[in-house]
Amino acid sequence: MQISMVGLGKMGLNLAENILDNGYKVAGFDINSDVREKASKKGIHTFDSIESLVEEMDQESIVWVMLPAGKITDDSVNKLSNLMHENDILIDGGNSAYKDSIRHNELLKKRGIIYFDVGTSGGTNGARNCGNFMIGGDNKKAFSKIEPIFEKISTKNGYLYTGKAGSGHYLKMIHNGIEYGMMEAIAEGFDILEHSQFDYDNESVARVWSNGSVIRGWLMELAQSAFSKDSDLENIKGIMHSSGEGRWTVDEALELKVPTPVIATSLMMRYRSMEDDTFTGKVVAALRNEFGGHPIDKIE
Amino acid sequence: MQISMVGLGKMGLNLAENILDNGYKVAGFDINSDVREKASKKGIHTFDSIESLVEEMDQESIVWVMLPAGKITDDSVNKLSNLMHENDILIDGGNSAYKDSIRHNELLKKRGIIYFDVGTSGGTNGARNCGNFMIGGDNKKAFSKIEPIFEKISTKNGYLYTGKAGSGHYLKMIHNGIEYGMMEAIAEGFDILEHSQFDYDNESVARVWSNGSVIRGWLMELAQSAFSKDSDLENIKGIMHSSGEGRWTVDEALELKVPTPVIATSLMMRYRSMEDDTFTGKVVAALRNEFGGHPIDKIE
Repeated sequence: MQISMVGLGKMGLNLAENILDNGYKVAGFDINSDVREKASKKGIHTFDSIESLVEEMDQESIVWVMLPAGKITDDSVNKLSNLMHENDILIDGGNSAYKDSIRHNELLKKRGIIYFDVGTSGGTNGARNCGNFMIGGDNKKAFSKIEPIFEKISTKNGYLYTGKAGSGHYLKMIHNGIEYGMMEAIAEGFDILEHSQFDYDNESVARVWSNGSVIRGWLMELAQSAFSKDSDLENIKGIMHSSGEGRWTVDEALELKVPTPVIATSLMMRYRSMEDDTFTGKVVAALRNEFGGHPIDKIE
Repeated sequence: MQISMVGLGKMGLNLAENILDNGYKVAGFDINSDVREKASKKGIHTFDSIESLVEEMDQESIVWVMLPAGKITDDSVNKLSNLMHENDILIDGGNSAYKDSIRHNELLKKRGIIYFDVGTSGGTNGARNCGNFMIGGDNKKAFSKIEPIFEKISTKNGYLYTGKAGSGHYLKMIHNGIEYGMMEAIAEGFDILEHSQFDYDNESVARVWSNGSVIRGWLMELAQSAFSKDSDLENIKGIMHSSGEGRWTVDEALELKVPTPVIATSLMMRYRSMEDDTFTGKVVAALRNEFGGHPIDKIE
């Protein structure tokens, strides 16, 4: 059985190596020739176009797309829908929006291509050694064909067939929404400690919280790791980028009218962190000055 | 070395047994005779008053108070301050507010009694087998006397000397504030799943998230356990009680002017859950009706 990986970036290459270690043949395409060379050295048969990758495939092959969500994944799935054959399996292991995944499923179904949307968690190390996968797809029978792969490349109990197409990426979206809230909660706690009257060592705090406390978990272990490198994070700006899934979670909550104030606030705090100053701040300062003569800080 | 436990409830008794297992003599007091009887059967030498417990103590003994925070702990510490001798050690292992702990330290210091405020995490099983302890106290030298106990009753790397008196309970307070935020984030995620177009099995989701995902941790494992007993929690009312530490965290954030919107919102959502209806809701409904004739739901 050969798996053809489309995209050999930090997630794709680590996954490809993990799959290779588990006794499968792995081919791969990446647009970047340096990346292709790196993959070749690991034993992956690389191609310089999606066309040549697919041409080489056996019948009933598996293509695993591991690309940035949005236009790049969209273009590749569209292209693959024209190149792949009936009963081939296409796995999208990226962070696609679930509505895109439902649309991709419809498109591929028309061509007889079997689609799975796979939410992937656990970071690069997870992809390399012990992944976590949430797998949606209408064709449950076909899932039994790919299940042995997931069994081998996952950590124990680390994969789940979640139901019809879209449900895998939907679950990953919610996972990330929860992640936003958990991370903001942890960070706010350390922010209070940093301003407190006591003199805590952040790494030691994260370590003791990682061992036996109620809030232990991987995020706390990662906090310990970060503080071990830079005890007060003096070299990191507090700008919290986001890549979409938190926003989609809030979009979904709004669509379903489910109150999720903590996840929504976590997202808003990320946006706040992108701004040095805010227009909200200017307006409130101006109004306080207007009604009560409260002092304002002028821009020099 | 004998440890005298004041309070043999679910935390106190489990801790006492843990200490006993590690080769120490344990005496104990509880106001409830059934609890005393239960503790006696476990090998704990029980007393029916704090006075008789202290009377029996050797010189330079250790009293470990494990009582509900607030008045009960306060009364017991006050009483103990009159009964214990110079160089005795008093440990408060409950969830006392850190300002109480600072006050207790001042009181006990005047009598020459050495005080440690110990935040205890990890639940009842932690207390019994592999605890988590955040230990504040002005007398670092005396800490070396009790450190071997913590080394034995903690999980590996599961205790930390946090600095001067009050810092242990302060750190436990922040731990609980973070816990509020993490729990609300997890719960909001499952709330969206429950309303989604897909058909997820909550236990399976919590299981896959517990194994290799970014949001894995003890709280997710506890969610899996809860869903395994009642897959949609049909037998549990969504009323979120709170016992103080979340509120103290927000009080502290306000005092320090540190923005902690997620922890604060988690606390507010707990208060919201205590109400069937809200006056806020009535006021907004009334105003919408006043200005725009928007329909209101009348109480029948």
